This record gives sequence, structure tokens and C-alpha cells, in this order.
Amino acid sequence: MRVNGRDYRTIFPADDGRAVRVIDQTRLPFEFVLRELRTAEQAAAAIRDMVVRGAPLIGVTAAWGVALAMLEDPGDASLRRNVDLLGATRPTAVNLRWALARVAAALAAVPPSMRAARAATEAATIAEQDVAACIAIGRHGRPILERIAAARHGRPVHVLTHCNAGWLACVDWGTALAPVYAAHEAGLAVHVWVDETRPRNQGAALTAFELGAHGVPHTVIADNAGGHLMQHGEVDLCIVGSDRTTAAGDVANKVGTYLKALAARDNGVPFYAALPSSTIDWSIEDGVRDVPIEDRVAREVTHVTGRAADGRSVEVEIVAPGSPVANPAFDVTPARLVTGIITERGVAAASRAGLLELYPERAEAE
Amino acid sequence: MRVNGRDYRTIFPADDGRAVRVIDQTRLPFEFVLRELRTAEQAAAAIRDMVVRGAPLIGVTAAWGVALAMLEDPGDASLRRNVDLLGATRPTAVNLRWALARVAAALAAVPPSMRAARAATEAATIAEQDVAACIAIGRHGRPILERIAAARHGRPVHVLTHCNAGWLACVDWGTALAPVYAAHEAGLAVHVWVDETRPRNQGAALTAFELGAHGVPHTVIADNAGGHLMQHGEVDLCIVGSDRTTAAGDVANKVGTYLKALAARDNGVPFYAALPSSTIDWSIEDGVRDVPIEDRVAREVTHVTGRAADGRSVEVEIVAPGSPVANPAFDVTPARLVTGIITERGVAAASRAGLLELYPERAEAE
Repeated sequence: MRVNGRDYRTIFPADDGRAVRVIDQTRLPFEFVLRELRTAEQAAAAIRDMVVRGAPLIGVTAAWGVALAMLEDPGDASLRRNVDLLGATRPTAVNLRWALARVAAALAAVPPSMRAARAATEAATIAEQDVAACIAIGRHGRPILERIAAARHGRPVHVLTHCNAGWLACVDWGTALAPVYAAHEAGLAVHVWVDETRPRNQGAALTAFELGAHGVPHTVIADNAGGHLMQHGEVDLCIVGSDRTTAAGDVANKVGTYLKALAARDNGVPFYAALPSSTIDWSIEDGVRDVPIEDRVAREVTHVTGRAADGRSVEVEIVAPGSPVANPAFDVTPARLVTGIITERGVAAASRAGLLELYPERAEAE
Repeated sequence: MRVNGRDYRTIFPADDGRAVRVIDQTRLPFEFVLRELRTAEQAAAAIRDMVVRGAPLIGVTAAWGVALAMLEDPGDASLRRNVDLLGATRPTAVNLRWALARVAAALAAVPPSMRAARAATEAATIAEQDVAACIAIGRHGRPILERIAAARHGRPVHVLTHCNAGWLACVDWGTALAPVYAAHEAGLAVHVWVDETRPRNQGAALTAFELGAHGVPHTVIADNAGGHLMQHGEVDLCIVGSDRTTAAGDVANKVGTYLKALAARDNGVPFYAALPSSTIDWSIEDGVRDVPIEDRVAREVTHVTGRAADGRSVEVEIVAPGSPVANPAFDVTPARLVTGIITERGVAAASRAGLLELYPERAEAE
């Protein structure tokens, strides 16, 4: 997508083929800086420290991490060690393990001397497939916005989103924002309510940044405000991403998503999750029971980093000293609250039957 | 309540009787500082700059402001001028005008020479009545926690609250927190989940501070986390305050309250509002339609003030520059989501019939 008039992806190989470049998302929204990752350790640190984040982008970065490891030592022990290293960075995202398993499987039968090249090809392929999936999600989601626009006689369609499931979370286009970008590119009047998304503020920092850079009208709100807006008819639909989706259509996404889904249901607002099928975990049904939820560090809640009046980045403490903090990073929105799941193959009902209609090969697999 | 082992109220007369002392809430949670107000102008500035906040405390401060004015000049013109000055400090606080009208009425028939003493008596009476109402709310709310504790066989009762409706918003004890303090004082094991409460962070700064200072176990969470905790059985009940309550039991409170009420309902968690009957607006029924919601400045969302590593208070910017912001300060929780309303007279069902059972004089008044 566009930044300062130029088209970017969130991750792309360096010219010498011995590194990948990523947008350093910890510096956004105030600085747009590229960072070079030259080793698997740097890739793992980038994932762990959230220099890159978003389920699809994490998967692609991990795949590139294996490729970088194979450049240094393509042996079996190195492969296993680095897959473990990269897989241990974030617990909730299913793409991470899916991408690593895919690269590991591809390399298993390949002689060590060819593994670096093979891993790079696999990483690039995963990236291309992610872009294609996001474009397809946009194509399938756009008619939902078009129908609302028609009913509103051309007045802007107000979409509420939580966290960042835009192109910064993927390689390009995004998942939740793909239908928004597709509608915007097609000339539809769209306006996005952007949840701040405490405690990491990915909405205020990333979603607002990418919508603004690309020219999509939007308004940032506190996470607390969405229910009030829905009560007053100011939200036409919600679209969120997903870090893991169960076979029954439960959606694990950034903590607070569930609260918006409840408000949407209470006010008759359609609530969609947009996701590539790679985030579907066909092995589980009950997301509240079975999706492991990452507990992150207290400091994300107790401290906020921002830009001081003198332009410097400053971290300030905002919680009463000595008060304990809990910081669950995700929650699960039960399928009963989800109007539909927008995937790269089309829009499915949020149920096992609905998902199997789009992915019939899964029924045969089980 | 206790701070550093000493009992405090949020406002109390100075020893010489020619000033009042308040806790400077703009310095919390990092510094506990008392400030002396010696003139009506200083009292007005304290309200306007939110050195004191919370509807009950604002009313008491304004009443003391009139008393201070009468010490300087007890004439009719001075009385009118200072009531106007103090009444113009905060546009929405109902108690402010109620307290000023009450003091002005008490002084109307009193000769100027006796007005200072009479105003001080009235201010002290308003403060005592607020304390009595809060203690009564605590007494009526405590059995709710005791019943849960009994069912949990002595394991801690987990209460979730939003914003600050504790003693810092009142003179002592608080509204939503009064039952918590009452249960804690009675030896019950209580633990409070404290919503951060964006955008002004009153939960993280004030509620966490006052619970910590008084020794009540608590944990600060992002506003987004409460739904997840309720899904996993980690919340036994919710108690919130109210800025305005309709005759039908709809509760207008800090924005985000509605989302927690929805999650409570979805998970079978009791949801109570605790309030003095002075916040009940008997003239309206439908809160979503009829309670005016204050839109506050964007800067509350775009900027955060906290303590930097060097101990200084620093304001940092956290939203993508150029992104518009909306900042509704309150939302309305419909009565259908409210398990009960804890008042100074007892616990009412959240309905016109329920409230009239406790306040039968209102039925006759209409």
C-alpha cells in the first residue's frame, strides 16, 4: 500500500538476497523506518519485540527466518533449532507454526546445500499467497460494503475495526481492511472508526497511520466508545481480523474484540471476521476453552511510549505504582456473535458447516 | 480512607477555619499532595482544573467556595458573583448546581455577618450527608459480596469496576467502591479488577491508587480485557457508579460501562450500579435517547500524561498525526442489563417500579 506516495510491502528481500527488510512497526506512527534482518535470531527478535506483528506477517517473517538460518548452517540440527527458536516467539498465532511447518516440510527432502534457496523460495511463495489471499478477501468483502452503501443511498459506510488487521499486519492489503481498501479503490464512500486498541495502541498507531497514508477517511476512538456509537446508529458494520479461528467459527483476535461483537449483536450491526484460511485451526471447535491466550508483560499496561513535545520518543508510567497488572492479549468471540467469515474463497457462515462449504477438502481430511 | 496509614477525606477544613484542604488529584497516582484553598477563586480553579473531580466532591468544594467568599465579603453582590463563578466551572455536573443552590438558599435569609459561619455549616452538612450516603451504599451492597463469598467457600470475591467511583470521587468511602470497602473492612477476601478507563485513565491512576493505599487487593487491566476475564469465570460481579440514572433504571456512566454490562449479561455475571439517589433524574426514562453525552476534547485521546524515567511529568502524543478523533465521555447502560441499583436506601430493581419501591415519595410527586 502507499506511504508518502510510494507502494510498499511490509516485508521484502534485500537486494543481496542475504537479508530481508521490514517496516519497523515499533517506530510507527511517528517514524517510517525500514529495518534489515540478517539472521534467524534477528527475525525471532523482530517477531518477539513486535517490530513485525500481525498473524500473516509473523508467519512470513518466520519463514524468512528459516531461510536466513539456512544461509548460515543448513544442517538438520540447525533447521530444527531455528524452527523451534522462531516457533517459540508468540504463542497464539497459528500462522507462525503453520508457516514454519510448511518450510520445514519443504526442506526435509532437500539436500543441505540447496536449503537456503529452497527456504527463500518457500518464504516468497508464502508472501505471494498471502497477498493473493488478502486481495481475494477484499474482493469477497467489498460487496458487503456495497450493499450497505446502496441502502444508505450513497452516504458513507461506517466500518468499525479493532486493532490492526490492515496491510501492516500482512504483506499487503490486509485482512479486515482489505474490503475497506477494495471499496475505497472502487470509489465507494467509506469511513472507518478505529479502536485505539489498548494496551499496545495498534489501532491509534498503525491502523490510523495506514488508513491516513493511503487516504481513507477514519476517526480514532477509545476502545470504550464503540458501544455508544453503535447505540446511536453510527456504525454500519464491524470487520475484524483473526489470529486463530476454530473449525466451528469462533474467532480469537486482539483482546476487546469480543466486547465489540456483543455490542454489534445488541444493536443489530453486522459483525464480520476477515481472515485467510491459514488462520483456521481445524483441530479445535470451542475457542473459549481451547485457544491458548497469551499473557503479555505488565509494562505494556503500566507504561506508554509516545512523542514528547520536543519530538523525542518518551516512555511514561501511567498506573499507580505498586498496583499489579494483568495483560491478556487476545479474546475469543464465539461463532454465535459472528455474522460471517470473509475468506479468500468467499464469505462463510461462522459454523463448521459454513466453513466446510468453502473448504470441502477438510471434511474429507477428517 | 487510609493513605500512608492515616485516615483522610478528600476535602476538610483547615485548622484556622479560613481555608479548606483538598487532595490534589492531578498529582495522583505519583504524588500525594494536599492543597489549601483560601478563596472562592482558588476553589473555582480547583474544580475547573480537576484538582478535585467526581460529582459529589465537586459539589462540596463549591459549597466551601461560597463559605470562603463570605469570609471576605458577605454582601449580596458577592454572594451572587461567587455562586455564578463557582457554577460556571464544569458544564455538566448536576451536583455542582444543586449544592450551590442549596447554600445560596440557606444564606438568603441570613444577615451578612453570619453568612460565613452559616455557609461553612452548610458545606460541612453536605459533606456529612455525602459520607452518610456512601456508608449506607456500602452497608446495602456488602451482603451481595457476602453471598458470593459464601458460595465460593471463602475464596476471594472478584469485583470488576470501571472508572473511579471510589472515595476520591466523593468525600469518603465512594459509591461503587463503598460495598468493596465495607466487605474488606468486615474481613471478607475481596479482589478488584480495575479497568484502566481510557481516555483519562481514572481507573489506573485513581482507583488503583486508592485501593492500593487502603490495602485492598486489586489488579489493573486494559478496558478491553474484562470480557475475556468474564468468559473464564474470573469476575464474580461488576459494580460501577453513575453520573445520571433515569427513572426507568438506565445508567449513564463513564464510556465503556455499557460494554462491560453486555459481557456480564453474556456470562451470567451480576452487574450493579451504586449511586446516591441524587443522581437519579426522575424526569427521563430512556437514557440512550435522552441523556446528553458530553463530547470531550481530542487531546484526551491523542495525548497521555505520565511519569517519565527521570520522575518528571511528561505529556506524549500516541495517535497517528493528522488522524481525526472522537471522544464521547459517557455511555448509557440500559436497565435490562442492570441486575440491581444499590442506593443509600437499599438495593432496587433497575426499573421504575423498583426505584419507586425505595423512593415512594417520587410516585406521589408525579
